[in-house]
Amino acid sequence: MRGLHFDGREARVRDVDLPELPAGWARVRVHLAGVCNTDLELVKGYMGFRGVLGHEFVGEVEEGPAPWRGRRVVGEINFACGRCETCARGLGRHCPQRSVMGIQQADGAFAEWLHVPAENLHEVPETVSDERAVFTEPLAAAFEILEQVPLAPDTQCLVLGDGKLGLLVAQVLALAGGRVTAVGRHPEKLALLARRGIETRLARDWMPTPTQLVVEATGSAAGFAAAIAATRPRGTLVLKSTVAEHPGVDLAPLVIHEIQVVGSRCGPFEPALHALAAGGIETEALICDRLPLERGVVALERARAPGARKVLIEV
Amino acid sequence: MRGLHFDGREARVRDVDLPELPAGWARVRVHLAGVCNTDLELVKGYMGFRGVLGHEFVGEVEEGPAPWRGRRVVGEINFACGRCETCARGLGRHCPQRSVMGIQQADGAFAEWLHVPAENLHEVPETVSDERAVFTEPLAAAFEILEQVPLAPDTQCLVLGDGKLGLLVAQVLALAGGRVTAVGRHPEKLALLARRGIETRLARDWMPTPTQLVVEATGSAAGFAAAIAATRPRGTLVLKSTVAEHPGVDLAPLVIHEIQVVGSRCGPFEPALHALAAGGIETEALICDRLPLERGVVALERARAPGARKVLIEV
Repeated sequence: MRGLHFDGREARVRDVDLPELPAGWARVRVHLAGVCNTDLELVKGYMGFRGVLGHEFVGEVEEGPAPWRGRRVVGEINFACGRCETCARGLGRHCPQRSVMGIQQADGAFAEWLHVPAENLHEVPETVSDERAVFTEPLAAAFEILEQVPLAPDTQCLVLGDGKLGLLVAQVLALAGGRVTAVGRHPEKLALLARRGIETRLARDWMPTPTQLVVEATGSAAGFAAAIAATRPRGTLVLKSTVAEHPGVDLAPLVIHEIQVVGSRCGPFEPALHALAAGGIETEALICDRLPLERGVVALERARAPGARKVLIEV
Repeated sequence: MRGLHFDGREARVRDVDLPELPAGWARVRVHLAGVCNTDLELVKGYMGFRGVLGHEFVGEVEEGPAPWRGRRVVGEINFACGRCETCARGLGRHCPQRSVMGIQQADGAFAEWLHVPAENLHEVPETVSDERAVFTEPLAAAFEILEQVPLAPDTQCLVLGDGKLGLLVAQVLALAGGRVTAVGRHPEKLALLARRGIETRLARDWMPTPTQLVVEATGSAAGFAAAIAATRPRGTLVLKSTVAEHPGVDLAPLVIHEIQVVGSRCGPFEPALHALAAGGIETEALICDRLPLERGVVALERARAPGARKVLIEV
């Protein structure tokens, strides 16, 4: 089959083998997949990954356990062992033996077919189009914040970063009743949030004021420092993106102001699918490009451009 | 009166003025005071402090509101404004207008007399000697962890650092039902914990294993990195000491393992006094030296020596 493969040096679309389907797994015919910043990090060497890229997808089950055949699905990306202590604690997403779709020792979704453990699948409601369902995985990552941090209604929230994830996080917090201010560098992206009643500020006009819940979604050391400065005493700072640069950020304010920093990664699919079905999340305006699988390398380039939004790959 | 004063260049014992007592404040005759690492940082320039040092004390009220006169007291160190939004939230310890005893715009306890707002005072139970009561402030800082992080019985806890604060933290967590391992560099200090049934490890023989609750009390960047490595997925890492060095520590594991980092500073005095009264905390073995106020400069030097424990100043 055809797939967008990374060999450790370059990503290119080529023929790749589709291995035998393990028992309890499903073979999914991919319809549509989304490019995430993690994909861009992987082709720079992050995680030392080799294989087919991609972990945001929607598709249809062609083979596998009978109840799943023919269903339109999305899939969770962490393939847990199911037998270790971490899995026993219900934290399969943190299983130390896990492989991760398109990220760690498992081929991903930028290909004609994809293998996923059936227990990782979620059926997509009929009312949710492929173009919306493909946002389930990143939207679940945004919902993860609500799973980790109880959000009282009217809580002041600040989201730093108007990248793909920041735009979803701001919407999820607003949906959950937070009073959200989003700070970013791109007027056209912030306008998308403003249309949904979210307060927005251009980074260059913004000064940190003490806020109860701050989400850092810029992925930059400067964003992390700004997030610390904007978190009020005993407030919560959610780290939603791994800061690639080793920061040299002064962490003393975390102690002085007794700030709680919460690292946050993959999240629950069900609330994300519900929100998509209910129409509570804008996704259409988040899409900036749509390319066929054969042009996958161009898709990565487009996603890398400054100010890019979600680039979709059609299979 | 005589006091150990820091003028921005050097600390020395000299005559200092005792200003008029503000309404609602108490004049305390200091009996005994303790040297904290923060004092050592202050004389290196931290906070730009000028004035009488010292914020751990026990003494007797000589003047002030009638109900307090003649009582033996300890006192909380943050002098809140009582009128701002932070104070209204019950977070006077974080009042942005606060002064802090011997740390920020308020003279401290290494002196014959000390002024403290009466609302900051706590009476010392008769059964608690001065030598034990002087530990109330740092012990309260250890109890702060329990105020911030709910501790289920039998929770695995790891305390990194066998300095003054680390030794109190390990005891408080054990007292609260945690299964505590303490890691440090000083066999004689660890022995003190081992005598109370706490598991101990010499740092050089120790390897991080995934732990639910980790307390970083080394104050070093290396300790912080080790603490991150030792916190299990979805676990909690309490930062109990401000890391002076800008660390350059890789924070990506916080996101990948969804670790919660909790900055922790001053704490509640009441549980600390109760624990001292109940005899649940070893303090005697924590004292390494005891010097009169006139030898205050030597007291700071002794506290600075490698492996030093608590140095007390007698007034």
